[in-house]
Amino acid sequence: MKNLESLALRWVDENLLLLDQTLLPAEEKWLVISNVSQMIEAIRALRVRGAPLIGVAAAMALAVSAKAGTNRQQMISEADALYEARPTAVNLMICIDRMKNILNENIDFTAKQLQEKIIAAAEQIWLEDIQLCENIANNGAALIQNGDSILTHCNSGGLATAGVGTAFGVIRRAHEQGKQIHVYVDETRPLLQGGRLTAWELGKLGVPYTLITDNMAAHLMSLGKINKAIVGSDRIAANGDFANKIGTYSVAVNCHYHRIPFYVAAPYTTVDPLCPSGAEIPIEQRKPDEVRGVEGSFGKVIWAPNDSNVYNPSFDVTPHQLVTGWVMDKAVFSNHDVASGVFK
Amino acid sequence: MKNLESLALRWVDENLLLLDQTLLPAEEKWLVISNVSQMIEAIRALRVRGAPLIGVAAAMALAVSAKAGTNRQQMISEADALYEARPTAVNLMICIDRMKNILNENIDFTAKQLQEKIIAAAEQIWLEDIQLCENIANNGAALIQNGDSILTHCNSGGLATAGVGTAFGVIRRAHEQGKQIHVYVDETRPLLQGGRLTAWELGKLGVPYTLITDNMAAHLMSLGKINKAIVGSDRIAANGDFANKIGTYSVAVNCHYHRIPFYVAAPYTTVDPLCPSGAEIPIEQRKPDEVRGVEGSFGKVIWAPNDSNVYNPSFDVTPHQLVTGWVMDKAVFSNHDVASGVFK
Repeated sequence: MKNLESLALRWVDENLLLLDQTLLPAEEKWLVISNVSQMIEAIRALRVRGAPLIGVAAAMALAVSAKAGTNRQQMISEADALYEARPTAVNLMICIDRMKNILNENIDFTAKQLQEKIIAAAEQIWLEDIQLCENIANNGAALIQNGDSILTHCNSGGLATAGVGTAFGVIRRAHEQGKQIHVYVDETRPLLQGGRLTAWELGKLGVPYTLITDNMAAHLMSLGKINKAIVGSDRIAANGDFANKIGTYSVAVNCHYHRIPFYVAAPYTTVDPLCPSGAEIPIEQRKPDEVRGVEGSFGKVIWAPNDSNVYNPSFDVTPHQLVTGWVMDKAVFSNHDVASGVFK
Repeated sequence: MKNLESLALRWVDENLLLLDQTLLPAEEKWLVISNVSQMIEAIRALRVRGAPLIGVAAAMALAVSAKAGTNRQQMISEADALYEARPTAVNLMICIDRMKNILNENIDFTAKQLQEKIIAAAEQIWLEDIQLCENIANNGAALIQNGDSILTHCNSGGLATAGVGTAFGVIRRAHEQGKQIHVYVDETRPLLQGGRLTAWELGKLGVPYTLITDNMAAHLMSLGKINKAIVGSDRIAANGDFANKIGTYSVAVNCHYHRIPFYVAAPYTTVDPLCPSGAEIPIEQRKPDEVRGVEGSFGKVIWAPNDSNVYNPSFDVTPHQLVTGWVMDKAVFSNHDVASGVFK
């Protein structure tokens, strides 16, 4: 298998390296992943995050195991353990299912053949993710004009995928095309993926950006300082409604009021044709201390009363009516396309 | 002068006590203010905050000085020093001007008479603030129904005034009237006045509340969990546009989209008839580290890149079109009233 390098995952001379995202932006520390247990720990501890990247990283952990000569039965157990590392991550399940199909079906293969198959499948998953990102980036960048000032929320870049990212990839590609753009980065409370990760990633690429608290975006829109918004997605329903990090819906409403185009970018794998609308997407509630304060490798502080009642949904749903376009790997779909059933 | 007690300021047996708000909600520590220098330090260090409360506290510091037998000329110097403690606070300037008028005009008074005049004037300023809050609270509470679920932003309560507060006072009065209400508290990034102060104050009064990050409010509205919003104001222009803590405008836009009544509450002293519209209200920019992280008595952490470019306006402007009603001490004004020129 050839070397592969992405922003947060590296396969170099058959060694797997993972960027510990919990330490960003203060420290760029690469972990050597020598076995599946280490990857499970990394997934659970959020050292690797972003649904597509978790899927690729989990597949690569099985490649590492295959390379080390683990037998078929043991690898099946390891795949099951990886599957459980983040129960709500659909990409993780899809990637592990692909690996398990090989482990369960090619029973006539020799150990060496199985090893090669597993490593090749993991590489294929990685390359597919890169290609999906490339297609999204190229399709979306065509929407970005010279001089645009673009708002984004959360992190959807090379720290969330094995490629250039989804919404972030669109921004990156427009910058690479030489367009003069400026990015406004929502800090994305409570977990601060914008302030910690997107700011770091844009800085690394040299894309001009300004960090803001989430509640400043509307004010900037009223001043005419934002003329486009683009975000990623965790799940897109058949009618075009989509779930994304909490705060996305508020961005969409504010864009609507200020008549600012609002785009969502995602690969086709994010579409759930069996989910008719956003109302059917379940919303996970997270622990109260995330809202009472902040915690990370940067430290932990709590500023609110310890007994304060808290509401902490991990994401929200934006209805299709507020979306200007769905930037996918195949094409940019309009509300008309979505109404015609492209997601069904 | 009789004893006076508010949530964050006490005049007991002619001793002035100030609640150190920087230590809330973790600790309730009362500082004895024995001279004007201590009050200037308290204002500068944000131990006392909220435009109306700062004005009352500054006047009371001069009462303390008069009680200690400070001579006229020295008190004039002290008044000037207080004036400079927070240059943008209009209430502070108005209160100090009232005190200086006495110091400059009643030149035939004996030292004893001047002392009594100064103490009486400070008491008068305090009592007027209580009365303004009472009138706002009573006028506003009439708008609140049993079962209402109310969003507020920042802190506009007994920690910001010498009375029950403005927007907060409306909520408090409705609760005192026995109406079953629930309050959603925006944490109010970057300085967290909601998460630190409003949550603490509601808890102390036993008003049921839920703390949220600012970007969750729109999602709650989409779920039908918020049916009114009320906020305070730093300045109201003649056309009804108003400035308030950053994030207020986003609340207003989201209320508009979800057809939720949006009220602003303030005393008549907040109206600036010489300011024709919100466009003429200058917006102070604050330091970048407030957005790169958080800092307070609870600790300091920075999570964003140290070199990140930051935008940090202290407040934003909400246009009158988005306001359902202006809850004032005299009455609740409608858009029609405002168009008729009640603020001119």
